[in-house]
Amino acid sequence: MADTPGSAEDKLIARYFRPLAKHPGTFEFKDDAAAITPPPGHDLVLKTDGLIEGVHFFPDDPADSVARKALRVNLSDLAAKGATPLGFLLAIALPKGFSEDWLADFTRGLGEDADAYRCPLLGGDTDSTPGPISISISAFGTLPTGTMVRRHGANPGDHVFVTGTIGDAALGLYVRRDASTPAKWKLDDAMRDHLVGRYRLPQPRNALAEAVRARASAAMDVSDGLAADLDKLCRVSGVSADIDVERVPLSPAAAQALKTDATLIEPILTGGEDYEILCTVAPGSIAVFEAAASKAGVPVASIGRIVAGDAGPRFLDREGRPLAFRRAGYSHF
Amino acid sequence: MADTPGSAEDKLIARYFRPLAKHPGTFEFKDDAAAITPPPGHDLVLKTDGLIEGVHFFPDDPADSVARKALRVNLSDLAAKGATPLGFLLAIALPKGFSEDWLADFTRGLGEDADAYRCPLLGGDTDSTPGPISISISAFGTLPTGTMVRRHGANPGDHVFVTGTIGDAALGLYVRRDASTPAKWKLDDAMRDHLVGRYRLPQPRNALAEAVRARASAAMDVSDGLAADLDKLCRVSGVSADIDVERVPLSPAAAQALKTDATLIEPILTGGEDYEILCTVAPGSIAVFEAAASKAGVPVASIGRIVAGDAGPRFLDREGRPLAFRRAGYSHF
Repeated sequence: MADTPGSAEDKLIARYFRPLAKHPGTFEFKDDAAAITPPPGHDLVLKTDGLIEGVHFFPDDPADSVARKALRVNLSDLAAKGATPLGFLLAIALPKGFSEDWLADFTRGLGEDADAYRCPLLGGDTDSTPGPISISISAFGTLPTGTMVRRHGANPGDHVFVTGTIGDAALGLYVRRDASTPAKWKLDDAMRDHLVGRYRLPQPRNALAEAVRARASAAMDVSDGLAADLDKLCRVSGVSADIDVERVPLSPAAAQALKTDATLIEPILTGGEDYEILCTVAPGSIAVFEAAASKAGVPVASIGRIVAGDAGPRFLDREGRPLAFRRAGYSHF
Repeated sequence: MADTPGSAEDKLIARYFRPLAKHPGTFEFKDDAAAITPPPGHDLVLKTDGLIEGVHFFPDDPADSVARKALRVNLSDLAAKGATPLGFLLAIALPKGFSEDWLADFTRGLGEDADAYRCPLLGGDTDSTPGPISISISAFGTLPTGTMVRRHGANPGDHVFVTGTIGDAALGLYVRRDASTPAKWKLDDAMRDHLVGRYRLPQPRNALAEAVRARASAAMDVSDGLAADLDKLCRVSGVSADIDVERVPLSPAAAQALKTDATLIEPILTGGEDYEILCTVAPGSIAVFEAAASKAGVPVASIGRIVAGDAGPRFLDREGRPLAFRRAGYSHF
């Protein structure tokens, strides 16, 4: 990202992105690259994740929430790995004839979240595209050398924890796609708005990163669905898990929807885009982990246990019978 | 980028990207993020640049050269800033029903260049898109703290240098668009292939990075056209420049084209995608800089001088008259 008084592209950068150049290493976006000095004794954690119009968001979603979501899906990964946000790079492709109002809203949302999560924009690239709006963010975090929390590391006997509530975003997508859904599920307006809000705007758990780093044996964020992501964590760790479905935390809205249609348990557990932290904690660390979560203001729930074996995680109903899912999780292809 | 034996997406990652996971901090792409330990006493230089099918490359360009170009346009920025490549993140969006052969060729080219430039793939993101293939790379380099070569820093009296030859890629794009062009310009097959090759496959000057870092007062890579990029460098440095057009180095193919049509000097100087280094060197450092370039095997040419003033660079013909361009450089909007 770089500007002169020259081209239309340069003017866009100066008007909408320059105000976000708060880190000294951005050189106010007047150079070709950014330079940062990583803190001594720390590793850099790197993550890239993107959003494409029509795939990850709707064309009429508010531009500021699209920007926030693009940043937050990356922040969620940093949180689950135990890293503190350092900054991010943005690549955005805009169709010819895009609205400047859209870009103004987008950069406002992006800047507000960059401030809120202390994760400044470090540089970027703007392109035109004959296709849909496409946003790619690379986010960087730091943590003491060698302490990134891995997917690998879960041991039999560890408790399986999730933050917040599960399934809201998947149900929110149903609501977003079919306006008759809230009536069918007997949701009031607040419940409907809650679910759609959770789809539109993840709440990454960066406040819990330090506790995860200090206490979790393994961790990842839930983006492809709790069932698929737990399966990944278990496979890499060489273990399995027994989950009590009744202990999976649900929002009042998701609980209400599930009451009207018991089959919704599948999208709740497999739908994805929760952007909550899934982690495992050894029994001896649970009390300290829960106290740290409470202090950080992040709700955590123990939903089951890691067990030996390679059968893959089981989601057990109240009678102890494993649920069978038609589709384990989200895949683009 | 992360895999399980699960989804089609995971299988693609395992088959085509896993072999590129050579850096230990990638954890073989079995985790959600990469972790790298930056060398002590060094800054990290960050850059992101993308390619979109139909904008930056043709749908029938060879997939391996598309991958190489995507990486090389970023390597070119690192070189011009004086940085040594450390690694990169890749975000790629593929249309539904893309060909696996394409992806196999793409990852082969990407892996070969990652090896050749010692710039390993550190992680990535694969998505499906209803639009064109879209590739976004974030590249990281290192250099001793505080030594990134800036656009800012050119002083009156400094010589203006460029590496390699200028204008080939812009003329190559003409040839690529209109098959009658080589005959019109009286190019032989080798000349035609040279120009198209320079459009398809930049040759970033990473071998010169250390000399640029040690000796240049200001530098950037030429991506938007020599005229526009020199203008940017001059504005940020608060200076101007006088360039002798006859000293701008041309390939035999570009020289031949120019001989048949003198107006081609404009696309040569403004067309962009050269991915050569433009830098300024103080008179006292020129001999050492030229010796280092010679040792690195990178041709460099002094094409003019930095002068005081803010009028913007002038491109002077053999009679000393400034050329006037209709369009200074490339802009996406």
